[in-house]
Amino acid sequence: MTQWIYQTLPRPSVEFESLARQHQAQLTKPPGSLGQLEELAIQLAAMQGTNQPRVERVAIRVFAADHGVVAEGVSAYPQEVTVEMIRNFAQGGAAISVMAREYGADFKVVNVGTAFPSPEHEMVLQYPVAAGTENFSRTAAMSDKQLVQILSVGSQVAEQAVAGGIDLFIGGEMGIGNTSAAAALACALLKEDPQQLVGFGTGVDQAGLMRKIAVVRRGLKQHQSAVDNPLEILRCLGGYEIAALVASYLRCAQLGVPSLVDGFICSVAALLACGINPELKSWLIFSHQSAEAGHSRVLEALSAQPLLQLGMRLGEASGAAVALPLLRLACCLHSQMATFAEAGVSAKEMD
Amino acid sequence: MTQWIYQTLPRPSVEFESLARQHQAQLTKPPGSLGQLEELAIQLAAMQGTNQPRVERVAIRVFAADHGVVAEGVSAYPQEVTVEMIRNFAQGGAAISVMAREYGADFKVVNVGTAFPSPEHEMVLQYPVAAGTENFSRTAAMSDKQLVQILSVGSQVAEQAVAGGIDLFIGGEMGIGNTSAAAALACALLKEDPQQLVGFGTGVDQAGLMRKIAVVRRGLKQHQSAVDNPLEILRCLGGYEIAALVASYLRCAQLGVPSLVDGFICSVAALLACGINPELKSWLIFSHQSAEAGHSRVLEALSAQPLLQLGMRLGEASGAAVALPLLRLACCLHSQMATFAEAGVSAKEMD
Repeated sequence: MTQWIYQTLPRPSVEFESLARQHQAQLTKPPGSLGQLEELAIQLAAMQGTNQPRVERVAIRVFAADHGVVAEGVSAYPQEVTVEMIRNFAQGGAAISVMAREYGADFKVVNVGTAFPSPEHEMVLQYPVAAGTENFSRTAAMSDKQLVQILSVGSQVAEQAVAGGIDLFIGGEMGIGNTSAAAALACALLKEDPQQLVGFGTGVDQAGLMRKIAVVRRGLKQHQSAVDNPLEILRCLGGYEIAALVASYLRCAQLGVPSLVDGFICSVAALLACGINPELKSWLIFSHQSAEAGHSRVLEALSAQPLLQLGMRLGEASGAAVALPLLRLACCLHSQMATFAEAGVSAKEMD
Repeated sequence: MTQWIYQTLPRPSVEFESLARQHQAQLTKPPGSLGQLEELAIQLAAMQGTNQPRVERVAIRVFAADHGVVAEGVSAYPQEVTVEMIRNFAQGGAAISVMAREYGADFKVVNVGTAFPSPEHEMVLQYPVAAGTENFSRTAAMSDKQLVQILSVGSQVAEQAVAGGIDLFIGGEMGIGNTSAAAALACALLKEDPQQLVGFGTGVDQAGLMRKIAVVRRGLKQHQSAVDNPLEILRCLGGYEIAALVASYLRCAQLGVPSLVDGFICSVAALLACGINPELKSWLIFSHQSAEAGHSRVLEALSAQPLLQLGMRLGEASGAAVALPLLRLACCLHSQMATFAEAGVSAKEMD
């Protein structure tokens, strides 16, 4: 039932990568002087198999779900906020809504399991698996059946997004309590102590942080038998929105579409998905390093070099959305700059 | 003749800064979770004296000039490239041309003193002071009269740009050899050894780097009497494009218009201008930290926190242009996000 996630992935085109690299060397600038923007253009050319990479058509899917672990007092906000924010996403008032509108992106929220009734709205896709996960510090977050179901949901959502014709997929998440789940997953995957990876999330105080660390530690102890199996780690400690992200990254890559990864929680989903299929890595672009404590360690484990470090920690795909103009500029510059020959500019004389 | 540069600057509005800060705290996100984008919006609101900061109307002026010091073999490219790149800017093939077009910005190149004849083109403003500076490692880069003239040119160019009605000014530079001049200025201003601040520029090899360091050291020794006077440092070691940047940042601030500072050379101009008038600092936004060796030290001296670190080192205002979408997003989010009250989202319950 979950066999699809192990499917061999296509590889970004070595030929177009090489052509893009040669093209960059001919553009009217000192070689390498556009820094990460050059690598971005080359990477996108390879993934899209083209000389003219572009990121005009972008699908943004924010998966929203609740977490049983909030019963332990690990969040600064009440659980109602998950559905309240779904409404805010749909009505256009959230950060990601503002940016999606600005970009003309195809933006949808996906209810994958909220504790309170989700608003009905044309922008909200309804795929609830349950009214939130179980409390992972006491029992498994989801059943085997629920895990199979949520992976299938993530895959379907990705397929539908790709069917619309897109250059790039952006996944995001909303779920009160989900930095606790993400930190627990990261600890299990990286075999780190919670002290290293649990952070302030939406803004708990010092006592709240101590509580989060203790709760994550309890969860890890509770589920220590899951320790070497990414899927079992996900089932025991994860969240529905996180599992949906894992599935959507994998499915997009299977379909040859790159994903732009958001912050801490999305990076944990990416780490988990790369644990399932290491070839996924070449289909991911990492947008930013968030202010959340564990993010730098997770990025390091992925050998990821994020584009931005702006001290953001909002989630909901907002960091990826802020990085999107950099991808667009990288493509624009790659396609539109003149070569030394075209412009009649002299090349380097030293060396 | 240069008295105008000491004119008292207006101060960004404390009232609008405070209103913007209060507004940010009411938007539907955990307080502080948009990181530097929040501070940007607040800073722009204060500078523009408005509740609705914006950076839609942007003027980009790239000042181009040549440097006598290239006779010492300090650049990887021949001096012809300065005018060849002016043509490339005008014809739309350079990185900054591509981005200016993308943004609908008011973009002009300003010839302030090239060694070879500058192309005539409607996009190229002609204000040459001389056919390049003198070789600063042997004599003063410019005369007193030339310094007065170039500061006046920078001021006029800024005034004309502001007269068009703009929300933001971006200055840039082009000039083979100008990382040597900028490094010499930075060493004189910060009393640092050339070893610390001279970098590879457009890409000299290791021998070229050693040569640059020796040349800068010779220039500093030659002009050690200039040591505590920013204007005299500028006259002895500077370049016409750098002096024009100094003047344009100061004039824009006098007129109440913020400037977005590009990379190493522009930051040295900003450092020099802040040495002339420390109040300038509150009118500057720093776009990126370049790969050029001395840039981080210069930014540190300015207590500047740049928005991007992408390993860029192209100059020509390109780093500032890459950061522009972040300013636009910061304004968009500030103006368009819903407040907790508007969206009916519950506020924080802990603390």
